[in-house]
Amino acid sequence: MAKIAILGFGTVGGGVLEVLRRNAAGVSRRAGEPVEVKYILDIRDFSAHPDAALFVKDLDTILADKEVSVVVETIGGTKFAYPYVRKALDSGRSVVTSNKELVATHGAELLALAKERGVAFLFEASVGGGTPVITPMHQCLAANVIDRVQGIVNGTTNFMLTKMARENMGFDQALKIAQELGYAETKDPGDDVDGPDACRKIAILASIAFGRHFYPKNIPTRGIRPITVGDIAAAARLDCVIKLIAWAKRDDEGRVTAGVEPMLVPKSNQLAGVDDVFNAVLVKGDMLGDVVFYGKGAGRLPTASAVVADVIDALKNGAAVHDSLFWQPSEPFEGLLEDPTPAACYVRVKGLPATVLPALYGEGELVSDDGAEAAYLASHISPAGLAEAKRKVDALGGSVRLVLRRLDD
Amino acid sequence: MAKIAILGFGTVGGGVLEVLRRNAAGVSRRAGEPVEVKYILDIRDFSAHPDAALFVKDLDTILADKEVSVVVETIGGTKFAYPYVRKALDSGRSVVTSNKELVATHGAELLALAKERGVAFLFEASVGGGTPVITPMHQCLAANVIDRVQGIVNGTTNFMLTKMARENMGFDQALKIAQELGYAETKDPGDDVDGPDACRKIAILASIAFGRHFYPKNIPTRGIRPITVGDIAAAARLDCVIKLIAWAKRDDEGRVTAGVEPMLVPKSNQLAGVDDVFNAVLVKGDMLGDVVFYGKGAGRLPTASAVVADVIDALKNGAAVHDSLFWQPSEPFEGLLEDPTPAACYVRVKGLPATVLPALYGEGELVSDDGAEAAYLASHISPAGLAEAKRKVDALGGSVRLVLRRLDD
Repeated sequence: MAKIAILGFGTVGGGVLEVLRRNAAGVSRRAGEPVEVKYILDIRDFSAHPDAALFVKDLDTILADKEVSVVVETIGGTKFAYPYVRKALDSGRSVVTSNKELVATHGAELLALAKERGVAFLFEASVGGGTPVITPMHQCLAANVIDRVQGIVNGTTNFMLTKMARENMGFDQALKIAQELGYAETKDPGDDVDGPDACRKIAILASIAFGRHFYPKNIPTRGIRPITVGDIAAAARLDCVIKLIAWAKRDDEGRVTAGVEPMLVPKSNQLAGVDDVFNAVLVKGDMLGDVVFYGKGAGRLPTASAVVADVIDALKNGAAVHDSLFWQPSEPFEGLLEDPTPAACYVRVKGLPATVLPALYGEGELVSDDGAEAAYLASHISPAGLAEAKRKVDALGGSVRLVLRRLDD
Repeated sequence: MAKIAILGFGTVGGGVLEVLRRNAAGVSRRAGEPVEVKYILDIRDFSAHPDAALFVKDLDTILADKEVSVVVETIGGTKFAYPYVRKALDSGRSVVTSNKELVATHGAELLALAKERGVAFLFEASVGGGTPVITPMHQCLAANVIDRVQGIVNGTTNFMLTKMARENMGFDQALKIAQELGYAETKDPGDDVDGPDACRKIAILASIAFGRHFYPKNIPTRGIRPITVGDIAAAARLDCVIKLIAWAKRDDEGRVTAGVEPMLVPKSNQLAGVDDVFNAVLVKGDMLGDVVFYGKGAGRLPTASAVVADVIDALKNGAAVHDSLFWQPSEPFEGLLEDPTPAACYVRVKGLPATVLPALYGEGELVSDDGAEAAYLASHISPAGLAEAKRKVDALGGSVRLVLRRLDD
C-alpha cells in the first residue's frame, strides 16, 4: 500500500482524491499496489468534510510520517508551494505538481534536488492540463533531437478567439462570456489574455526540449487584447485563422528563440483546426518529424488524471525518470529571446493612407482599408524592418495598431 | 555499455542502427549508459557492408552471448519473427518490435512470457509508425478507464483518399501514384487498401484499452476500393470527408465492438483534417475526455526512432512496464465484433429509382441521382435495417454499391 499526501485541497487537489477513488482498481494494478491518500494539507477549515480526518495544517506532520512516499502539490503560486516542495524533496519524498509557475521559475533547481535525493519530481499536468505532452516528449521522443515546439497552450484565449471568429464578436464580449463560464478570472483575466500563462508553459517545454532552464521573463509575450473582429475577418480572407501561439525553436547554431504571440495560422496548418478550450502542442524531432498532442486542456478531472499518472510513475520508477526528464540550471538575463527571422506579417495601421504601406513594409498586399485604418500583409519582413517601419509610421503621424506574424511550416 | 541485437536488416532495422549512431549522445544519457549494436541477424549477404563484422545468420549465436540484453525484431510477418521472439524472451532478453502482425496475433502470449521472465516486450512502433500512441495510452492515461479508440492508422489509404478528394481522381489512379511513391505495394496493395493493416493496428489498440486479446479475424474490415470521386463530392455536400476509420469501443455493459471501414467524417471532427500520409489516433478516457495523437506514420527514421525509445525504456524499466502494458489472453471465436448501434448512413444504390429509397432506408435526404445510381443519407438506421434494405433492393433488381456510416462524436 502506497501512502501519499495532497498539499492544497482546491479544484485539482480535490480532483486527485476523486480520481484515485473512482479508478482505484486500475491505479492499483498499474502502480503495483493500492494508492491511498493519508493526509491533505489545507489551511482552511474542512472539519465538516467526509474526509475531515485526513486534513492537517502543518507540513511537518506529513514529513514526519515515514509511510508517505509521494507528495502532490496543488497549492499553486510559489509563496508556499516552493518551500514546501523543496522540503518534501529534501526529505526523500517524490513530488508531483500541476503548478506551472513553480516549474517555470524553479524547475532546474527542483529537478537537481530530486535527482540528488534519489526521488522523482514530475509535472505533466503543468502543461496541457490532462493532455499528455511532457511524458511523450521526453520519453517517446527519447531518440530524437528536438528542434521546435509550438502550440496552443491557453484554453481561455483559444475559446475567446473561436467565439470571436464564429459569432462575429468583439474581445470584450468574448471575455465576458469566458468569465461567465468560469474559463477566465473575473478580477484579473490578464494572466490568460495577456499571455503570462502561455509564457510559463512554453518556458517549461523549451527547458525540456533544449536542456537548460528558460525563464518566462526572457520570452517575448503578447496577448490577444488588440485583436478585433475585423482582424479575424481579414485573416479569413488570407485563408488563415488567428491563434495565440506559444513557440520555441533552436537554430542550426544552437541559438534558442521563443515567444508567445497572436499569429496568422494558415488553415492548412494542423493547429488551425484546434478550437474552443482545446490545447495542442506540436513537437518536431529530427528523426520523427512533426507530432501533435491534442486534447481538452484544463478541467478538474482531466488535470487530476495527469497528476495521478505521475504519482504512479513516481512510485514505479522514482528518480530513474530524470535521466530523461532533466535540464541544466541557467541564469535569467536581461533581454529577450527574440526571433530575428523575417516572416510574412499582417500589420494594421491607423491614420495613414493605405497607399504608403508598400513603401514602409515592402512587397505585400493590401488586405483591408476602411478609410481610418488599413491592414497590409507584408510578404517578408524582419523584426528590425518592423521596428524601422513603426518609426516611420509614427513620424508620419500614424500609429501601428497590430502586428501578426504568419506561422509557416 | 548496453549491447543489443537487431533481427532483420531491412528498412526499419537499418534505421535503428542509424538512429542509435546519429543520436548516440542523447540515447546514452537517457538510457543511463551507451547503447551499442553487437549483432545483426540477416540471412542475406552483407559481407560488403561497412558493418559486415556485426552480421550473423544464427539466432543462437546471439542468445549465447550474455552481454546482449535487448533484442530488436524487425523481420516482419510471423514465420520467423514469432519463434525468434519467443526464444529471445525465454532466454531472459527484452524484446522490442515494430511488427504489428506478430503483436496482433501473439501479443497476449508474448506479454505473459515477458512478465514471467522478468523482461520487457515493447511495440510502440507497431501502431502509428513513429508517432507515440501506445506509451501515452497505457502510461499517461493510467488513471483513466478507456471507453473508445478511433483513428486513421493507415497512411497509404489516407494519402489516396486525400489525393482523390483534392485532385478529383479515381481509386485506380490514386493507387498508381501511391505505388509510384512507394506508399503502396506494387504486387498486392490489398494489405493497405482492403484494410488488414488497419485491422491489426486496431486489434492491438483494443487489446491495450480493454485488457484482453482481440483478434483481427473478429474485427469487421472493409477497405476503400468502392469509393468513387462521386462519393467524395457527395460527402463534401454533406459537410463531410471520407476516411478509413479504425475504431473500437466498449459500451456500458462492457461489450466491446470494433471495425475498420470507410466512414463519413464531419468536417468539424478533429480526424477530418488529418490528410496525406498522416495518422491520428483519438483515445477517450473517462476522466480525461478526448485526446488525439497525430503525426506522420511510417518512414524509416520515424519508425526506428520509436523502436529506439522502446529500447531505452526496456533497458531502464524492464518488466515493470507490464503492470500497465498488459492484456489477458483470449480465444478467437467465430463471428464479428459488429456494432449494433443505429447511425446515419450514406448508401449508394444502382438500378432503382431514387424515389423508392425513403421507403427502404427510412427518413433521410437524397444526396445525388445521376439516373443510373442514387445516393441517399439515411438519418438513423441499424445494421439489421441495412441488411433488410439490401434484401429489398436485391429483390427489386437493384444493387447496393456502397454503405458508409457517419462517424459521430
